[in-house]
Formats: sequence, C-alpha cells, structure tokens
Amino acid sequence: MKDVFPKGSAWIDNKIVKLSEAKISILDWGFLRSDATYDVVHVWKGRFFQLDNHIDRFFNSTIKLKMPCSISRNKIKKILAQCVKESGLENSYVEMIQTRGISPNFERDPRKATPKFMAFAVPFGWILKPEDFENGLDVFLTDIKRIPPSSVDPKIKNYHWIDLVTGMLNAYEKGHHTAILLDENNNVSEGPGFNIFSVNDDGIVTPDHGVLEGITRQTVIKLAEELKIKIYEKPITIEMLKLSNELFATSTAGGVMPITKINGKNVSNGKVGNYTRKIHKLYWDKHFDPLWSVSIKEIL
Amino acid sequence: MKDVFPKGSAWIDNKIVKLSEAKISILDWGFLRSDATYDVVHVWKGRFFQLDNHIDRFFNSTIKLKMPCSISRNKIKKILAQCVKESGLENSYVEMIQTRGISPNFERDPRKATPKFMAFAVPFGWILKPEDFENGLDVFLTDIKRIPPSSVDPKIKNYHWIDLVTGMLNAYEKGHHTAILLDENNNVSEGPGFNIFSVNDDGIVTPDHGVLEGITRQTVIKLAEELKIKIYEKPITIEMLKLSNELFATSTAGGVMPITKINGKNVSNGKVGNYTRKIHKLYWDKHFDPLWSVSIKEIL
Repeated sequence: MKDVFPKGSAWIDNKIVKLSEAKISILDWGFLRSDATYDVVHVWKGRFFQLDNHIDRFFNSTIKLKMPCSISRNKIKKILAQCVKESGLENSYVEMIQTRGISPNFERDPRKATPKFMAFAVPFGWILKPEDFENGLDVFLTDIKRIPPSSVDPKIKNYHWIDLVTGMLNAYEKGHHTAILLDENNNVSEGPGFNIFSVNDDGIVTPDHGVLEGITRQTVIKLAEELKIKIYEKPITIEMLKLSNELFATSTAGGVMPITKINGKNVSNGKVGNYTRKIHKLYWDKHFDPLWSVSIKEIL
Repeated sequence: MKDVFPKGSAWIDNKIVKLSEAKISILDWGFLRSDATYDVVHVWKGRFFQLDNHIDRFFNSTIKLKMPCSISRNKIKKILAQCVKESGLENSYVEMIQTRGISPNFERDPRKATPKFMAFAVPFGWILKPEDFENGLDVFLTDIKRIPPSSVDPKIKNYHWIDLVTGMLNAYEKGHHTAILLDENNNVSEGPGFNIFSVNDDGIVTPDHGVLEGITRQTVIKLAEELKIKIYEKPITIEMLKLSNELFATSTAGGVMPITKINGKNVSNGKVGNYTRKIHKLYWDKHFDPLWSVSIKEIL
C-alpha cells in the first residue's frame, strides 16, 4: 500500500507521522456517520494563504456541529506549519479535520464521544493545472441536486460527497473534466470542491444559496471589489449559465480556473475571458502580500 | 483509548484484529468524501438473521456506487462469521463496509482508487432496550429534512448522517429518546437508523419515498402479510402520524420497537398496541427458523 501515498506528513494522536501511518479507528463516528468537519488551506512558496479565514470557518463548523474545537488557533497554526515543514513541500494542500470521535462501548449518543483533531499536508493539487489554463475546464452539467440546506447546513464544511462523486463519475464517463450540480430549485449550485462564477453584461454573479461559502469564493468577491467589477450573490439559472460571457470556478485546489465549455460546447467564444484573467492574476499576486498570507517560518 | 472499545473483533487488511487495532487511512475517500457503503446484520443466539438479504443489498449498494464488491458472498459470510466467533459474542451487531479506498498520489479521480472491504462485530445494540419495551420510545418530530433521493439514492446504504445526528442531538437536548425527520414534501421520512410504521384503522402504513429500504422494514412487510394484516407503502403526513392508533420503529438495532410518544405526548393511549406486539413476537420467533436464519457454526 505504501506506494499509493503522496509525499506529505500528518498530525494525529498528538504527534507528526508519515502519511502511511495516519489512521483513524473504524469506530470513529467521523467515519461511520461522516460526523466530521474539515477545512483546507494552501501553502504557496512557503506561505499560507488566508490562514485565519480558514481557521475561523473551521471553528464555526465545529460549533455548528456542537463539538467546538478545543485546540487553540495558535496551536492549530503550529500543527499545520509542522505538517508542511516535515513534508518538505513548498506548495502544499493542508487539511485540518475534527471528527466526533468514538463513543465508549459504541453507544449511539454522539455526546458521549470525545472529538478528535487531526491534520495533514500533501502536495498542492489542481482541479485545472496551470499548463491547461488556456484550454480551461469542460464541465458536465448534471441533473443531480446538491444536498440541500434543509438537510445539511452547507456552511458546515462536510464530507457528504456522494452527490458530488456521482457527478464526477458521470462527467468522467462522458469525457468531461468535472461536473456542476443543481440546487433544489434547479438553479446552479456548485461542483466537487469548487464554487461557480458567471460573468454577464452587468458584472459577475455567484450563487447565493445552498453552496459552501468557499474562502476562495469570498476572496474573489473581495478582489472583484478591489478591481471595481460589480459582483452579485444571486441565483444563476441554467440558461444564464449557458449564456455567460465568461465562466470560472474557484477552489483552494487551484484558485481561479476558467470554465470554457459546458457539456463540450463553448462558453461564449470558448476562450479565457478578461475578467477571469484579471481576477486570476490578482489572486496569485496576493499570495505574496503579508495582508493575505503568512510564511511557515513565521509560525514555527 | 483502549477502554472506549466495546468487546468485539474486526477484519481489515485481510486479517482478524482487535477492535482497537482496526483502522483506516485518513486519505481513504471513504472517510474524506464519505464515499462508502455498508450493511449491518445481526446475530441472535449464535444465528445470523436474514444474512443473504443483507449481503444482496450490500452488493447492490456497491454496484450503484460503481465500485462493485470483488469479494464473494461465501467469503463475506466467512469473514463475518469469523468476526463473531473471535469476539465471543452470542448476540452481535455485525457491520460490513466497502470504501472507495485511496487514489494513488491523492488524485481526485475516484476510479483510480482500489475499493477496500472491512467488517466488524460488536455487542448487539438496542435503540430501545427490551426492559423498556412497555414504555416505548418518545420521539421528537424535527423539521429537518432527510437528504432527498434527488441528491443521494437512499437505496445505497450510506454514512451521510449529519441530518440524522442533528436530529438526535436536538431530541436529546429536549429530553426525548430519538428523532424523526421529514422528507422534502413535509411527510414523515425516517429516524437515525430506523424506519417508521403507523397503524390506522385500515392497517399499517410505512413511507414509500426517500427512505432506506431497511431489511427489518422488508421483514415486517412480509410478517404483516403472514399475519393477514393489511400493509401499505405510501406517504405518511404529520397529521396521520400524530393520529396513529399505534406507531413503531424498525431497525437491525433492536428489531420492532413501539413508539408511544411524539414530542412527549401519548400516541393513542400511550400503550404498546396489539399489532406492534404481534409483529414483535413473530419477528423474534423467526430468529430460530432456518428459513430466516443461519447459525455461525454452519458457515465456519
């Protein structure tokens, strides 16, 4: 099994271990009920991007799940920085997780369990690789509905991904790169690990309902304001999506990524648009701005 | 940590281990995307109940998730029987699981992963203990919607439980035993790990939509037919639920369990009803019938 593991390190049971040794009990409710939350921050050229915002959201998720994180912000920062340092990675994808833990004697009551914190660092991953930027993503528009907020609060970052995985598998089968899911009103929701932005003649629009409030999504909203581009959070219908002047996805796993095709058909002229380029450039510039990023060394 | 584990045994990585040693990698998509399916069969006085039906459903779930189980039915039976034998338990709750596994180098594509099978046996668990049978369950009727079939196929037995766990926590906080969730049409759906049956003047009704097709649910449908009681699969409105002559829950974790209170208020006269008693008795009688059950020894 060892050869399946990427380069990286993990922190679990109060110590740094190799990825291949980072394991949880199969009786942890984080596995048996997906009763867990997580957040992913990235490191670029040795600097965490938006670290405090990710930790804020992580803390909020643990509170919403009624298992507030007992590890301090500073301690979490040190754990994450240690994972990255041990991994030797300059560009990294760093995940922090809290599970409900194990209930003594397998009791059903989640309140009996002791929450468990863990983290790991792996190489930075791209939903769209930089060398494929000009080609952009070809997304498959599925009819699968993202799990609605009336069932699971999307502001709790969670591992309930069967809908997203089914979308991915459908997209791959048909030869597309990834998938977009709908919300319960048949409007555009999100894809596996990314938010969606549509550019039209009035500015930029991103769905306001039933989506994860991605940190990259929030970043893009701020960057658009800095660039004096009008940006709105409101529903995107399927028709609006297809008629977009430009379309892009945002994720910690790759940043700002142009979507140039829907179901294999060009979005507008099928090229990367100007708004996408401007926001993409500013996004990466901010990675070296101390207001937006912090070096691993400063934390350790 | 050792003292949190119940008595029991597990099978993982091709061998029988102690429960405390049964662990999966934190990079398994079964954990990080809850991309997994499972089934639970029980053993009563050394006999598996409805084993083939549970394995049938498990195989179907793995096919629907596009990761068909590569372990044969006979091999699974032997693994489960070995877990029970090693555990020394006469009455046991036996879970089989298949996860998507790990993608080499943490690639996003689920098709790159090798599915992983595991199983474990723990002491038989009761949602309602036999000594509390006459009191019955007091359920809290939540307004949480069970994850709908348009997002996740409920026929794939899955670990997407945040909605159910939230319901449980809400119920516990208000002093009730467990919770009932609604479906997206505001009809009755199911509770954490159990299906619901309502008795009215026409017979017995159980929801037909958005619920797990529980093996105990299917069993009760067959038993009602054997008892010549009319039974229907159709929507149950909140009003119908509250006006039930009798109400009961079904689960592998406890069998047929009377619900005598909703939000603390009596269902009918608040006593266990006759249909519930008849079905409960026949359910347990079948545990010694070779048409319904098989002994561990026969399998080993």
